[in-house]
Amino acid sequence: MTELTGTWYISPTPFTDGGEVDQDSLRRIVDAAETWNVDGITILGVMGEVADLTAAERETVLATVADAARGRLPFAVGCTAPAAAVVRANAARAVDVGAAAVMVAAPALLKDTDSIGAFYRSAVGDCPVPVIVQDEPAATGVTLPVSALIAALDAANSNVVKLEDPPTPPKISRLLAQRPGLTVFGGLGGVSAYNELNRGAAGTMTGFAYPEILRAIRLAFETGDRERAARLNDRFLPYLVFEGQVRVGLGIRKEVLRRRGVLTTARTRALNPLPDAATLAELDDVLARVGLTPAIESVELP
Amino acid sequence: MTELTGTWYISPTPFTDGGEVDQDSLRRIVDAAETWNVDGITILGVMGEVADLTAAERETVLATVADAARGRLPFAVGCTAPAAAVVRANAARAVDVGAAAVMVAAPALLKDTDSIGAFYRSAVGDCPVPVIVQDEPAATGVTLPVSALIAALDAANSNVVKLEDPPTPPKISRLLAQRPGLTVFGGLGGVSAYNELNRGAAGTMTGFAYPEILRAIRLAFETGDRERAARLNDRFLPYLVFEGQVRVGLGIRKEVLRRRGVLTTARTRALNPLPDAATLAELDDVLARVGLTPAIESVELP
Amino acid sequence: MTELTGTWYISPTPFTDGGEVDQDSLRRIVDAAETWNVDGITILGVMGEVADLTAAERETVLATVADAARGRLPFAVGCTAPAAAVVRANAARAVDVGAAAVMVAAPALLKDTDSIGAFYRSAVGDCPVPVIVQDEPAATGVTLPVSALIAALDAANSNVVKLEDPPTPPKISRLLAQRPGLTVFGGLGGVSAYNELNRGAAGTMTGFAYPEILRAIRLAFETGDRERAARLNDRFLPYLVFEGQVRVGLGIRKEVLRRRGVLTTARTRALNPLPDAATLAELDDVLARVGLTPAIESVELP
Amino acid sequence: MTELTGTWYISPTPFTDGGEVDQDSLRRIVDAAETWNVDGITILGVMGEVADLTAAERETVLATVADAARGRLPFAVGCTAPAAAVVRANAARAVDVGAAAVMVAAPALLKDTDSIGAFYRSAVGDCPVPVIVQDEPAATGVTLPVSALIAALDAANSNVVKLEDPPTPPKISRLLAQRPGLTVFGGLGGVSAYNELNRGAAGTMTGFAYPEILRAIRLAFETGDRERAARLNDRFLPYLVFEGQVRVGLGIRKEVLRRRGVLTTARTRALNPLPDAATLAELDDVLARVGLTPAIESVELP
Repeated sequence: MTELTGTWYISPTPFTDGGEVDQDSLRRIVDAAETWNVDGITILGVMGEVADLTAAERETVLATVADAARGRLPFAVGCTAPAAAVVRANAARAVDVGAAAVMVAAPALLKDTDSIGAFYRSAVGDCPVPVIVQDEPAATGVTLPVSALIAALDAANSNVVKLEDPPTPPKISRLLAQRPGLTVFGGLGGVSAYNELNRGAAGTMTGFAYPEILRAIRLAFETGDRERAARLNDRFLPYLVFEGQVRVGLGIRKEVLRRRGVLTTARTRALNPLPDAATLAELDDVLARVGLTPAIESVELP
Repeated sequence: MTELTGTWYISPTPFTDGGEVDQDSLRRIVDAAETWNVDGITILGVMGEVADLTAAERETVLATVADAARGRLPFAVGCTAPAAAVVRANAARAVDVGAAAVMVAAPALLKDTDSIGAFYRSAVGDCPVPVIVQDEPAATGVTLPVSALIAALDAANSNVVKLEDPPTPPKISRLLAQRPGLTVFGGLGGVSAYNELNRGAAGTMTGFAYPEILRAIRLAFETGDRERAARLNDRFLPYLVFEGQVRVGLGIRKEVLRRRGVLTTARTRALNPLPDAATLAELDDVLARVGLTPAIESVELP
Repeated sequence: MTELTGTWYISPTPFTDGGEVDQDSLRRIVDAAETWNVDGITILGVMGEVADLTAAERETVLATVADAARGRLPFAVGCTAPAAAVVRANAARAVDVGAAAVMVAAPALLKDTDSIGAFYRSAVGDCPVPVIVQDEPAATGVTLPVSALIAALDAANSNVVKLEDPPTPPKISRLLAQRPGLTVFGGLGGVSAYNELNRGAAGTMTGFAYPEILRAIRLAFETGDRERAARLNDRFLPYLVFEGQVRVGLGIRKEVLRRRGVLTTARTRALNPLPDAATLAELDDVLARVGLTPAIESVELP
Repeated sequence: MTELTGTWYISPTPFTDGGEVDQDSLRRIVDAAETWNVDGITILGVMGEVADLTAAERETVLATVADAARGRLPFAVGCTAPAAAVVRANAARAVDVGAAAVMVAAPALLKDTDSIGAFYRSAVGDCPVPVIVQDEPAATGVTLPVSALIAALDAANSNVVKLEDPPTPPKISRLLAQRPGLTVFGGLGGVSAYNELNRGAAGTMTGFAYPEILRAIRLAFETGDRERAARLNDRFLPYLVFEGQVRVGLGIRKEVLRRRGVLTTARTRALNPLPDAATLAELDDVLARVGLTPAIESVELP
């Protein structure tokens, strides 16, 4: 069974100029993820614009990545839906095509957080692959206290949580105090990765466009070289923060992946599908400042 | 072209005991709607648990109702989705199978209400059938002021809005003051239908399990018999309020439809799929008090 | 010690034509509450527009009602605030002037519901009078699951909760299942009072403008005359629902209290301080339909 | 009249070890603000824990700062409240003691953003000092689109807005496109100050504990030395991001002000009034990394 730890890469869903799902770019994402030496790839998450895909497109993404990743890289699949029955169906399909794990957030706009255990039990209580419980208030409109996350983990027979509820570092401490040994992934574009790892996170699972940097920070931590971890974090923080902006961040990320040669276009399904001129100028500025040159190869790290 | 006015019935999605979409019950819903003399039927709305269906199930509902309703009853199709591209795809499929109209709410958790016009333009600006702009804060988490609703209507080339933002009566007045001639449907289970019609609503579009009562209230208004409209409203209000409860209301509604002989089961996809004993006892009590006996035939109205 | 049970009346804050707190009307409210035979009066709650008062006005309301009620009627005081220190100060002042109880809701926009116990402990853990834990999602933006309400009750050494999270009847059942013997007040303008009492509520605490009706429904329940309770509820439900509307309901309520001779004006501190003509016409209509004639005396009940 | 532009410092409300408002520290804040050469000081804002003060404490803060700042430094006063009448009262008191400006956000949990103009007109339409319209979704629960901000500005006869709705840089561009010449202050702890200034912000108004850094970034921009602005931003960004964390950020900020010799304690009115050990360790780490040594004097900037 795949070990769910380390640096996982959350894949965006690439689109062609015509606005269709771009399968060639999807395959290049898998290639790039391997090049970047990440521990796995997660598809159909919030930053994969999963809510913005038709069912046919969702299946295209799943099948394409499953095919491209087979034997090379474990992949996890976002299976979140408002009803347990739909999560079950999503998870079954993910398992069918070889997913190493499924990721499930709370149902959108859930009011009664006491019901979270029953939801996870019904949705993934008997899931044959590991379940990643995703704590995602921005996309779901649901803030889960630690007690509800623990209930969700128990109901899902899960030992893995991915946090996106800022500030993540103290929430990691509170979770680990109650559940020592829990695998916690940080998220939020890696903006707090340094302190997340400092608090005991097992890794980072996010869509940051230079995952090799997050991996290097983690490896530095694991080898006890905190000084290097801090140096890498601080060096690249201006870009981490820039890409980590809500709403506009996804277009920035896709533009960088385009420049790296991974995507054909930077299109999103948001209303303004491409970053505007001012944002692109800011992007050029910040990339130059932190010294990132875009190519599919891993950047050389100081 | 179908006139979008009058009393429209929002269909639930029926499930079998095994939890599958129940096509036989769906066909009986169309039969019942015809019996009840409603002006049209709306499928795949919030109370149709559209968010809780897989894409295949969604298609089953659409195809079954389209087939059953053809030549008998106009039907509208809920096409709401977070991305304009998905709304477009949903709407195209609805038009393909003969929908008289499509219904579209704001994308869930939308922050910038100034962007609502661009969203509707991109999603349904060129839709070949009428668009019903749905104002649904509870399900979307988005409260639209009148100015945003007007922008959405303009962008969708629409003259029809369905209101679910309480209190609906004063919002109807504000809308009609700015856009005289607008067709406004009330909703919210018919709880405020009497005052909605009083404020100028053209009808009611909701899933209340006795739509013939809402139709009779409307007809009384249209013929100037306000006394009868009030008498009908006040007589049945205890049940209107009981069925209109948030969260538990859908299971109550389905149970009544089961008792009327329309549905095979009262199952929902909520976590507790059937109303509990206390709720069923309250239901028996209120139905007895207002004198509603459940049969597929229209109830006799005083 | 005052028994916290029965029918409590939540007082509005009356304003003069000039927009000042109207002390004469406040005294008449206490007179009327005595006339209506309610078990107590609650001031400075959400419907008392407590958030819309200056500190000096708040003190005026408190001192005026304390003086008028002394020796006649127990009164409870809303003490909700975002910080425990301010709740403490509010509660201390309420106790000083003779409050029988204090009422405290969650701090507005609280994110981590696991912290609710610590909040109540710090705010009112040592309060010398009973604490009413108020469950008020609309005004606070915070939905508390039953587990959080229990934690709040424990921290406040309280056995009294007032529910405003619809649907209230099933939440009463869930609360009483976990905490038998809990005193639960229904609220929400009395719209669900009948079923709240049916589920085990000890009473109703709300600002409905004819509290004697809610009292009569409760007494009918207590004497086992459910038929009478139902008859009263159903008879007056059209007005209960009308007054119970969000946002516009407070102005309606104050207008009725003005007509009953209790208030001098119907002014609120909302942006449109008085009900508009259409709302007043609806009010005349519904009062006539249910046969309510406004006078300070208790209405005669069938 | 004070020019509302430049780098304004938002003052926290200091507390003594006993939990009282600490007037000595308040006076030292004014001293420090003068030392740091900021253009003004803002009190009783969100980060001044204004919602967590009693009315008497609020007055203490106002009177103390007014007295200390007189003739030395202009000060603005947060006057936000749910009702226009209370904003008016707050603003009148602020003007009485010599405030250079008042700052007003939307009323908490406002639903109908079309009513924002009427609110500001009633609250501050005739205010004799400049009004700063604060765009603060986190504290108010209200997201204002640009059209609503423009309506608020017009109603308040204001030309000054303070933005806290991330991502702030593109919102600045949208605002200035519609209202050229508008004075826009960035906020959010200065995390995006560099790009805010790049988009045309006139300054930053926030509570960052080293305001002299934000001032230096702004001056570099104004003199066209973008390279220096970027260097300063990037150098201190790890600490800007660390202090900028939601919820825990205020305690961090107060701890740094304590270390700088400005405050006597780092206490807040949150449930855990002081930063915990792990947070303090992170603070030590990040301050060392960016080379900030705490003293009341302005830090020497590269």
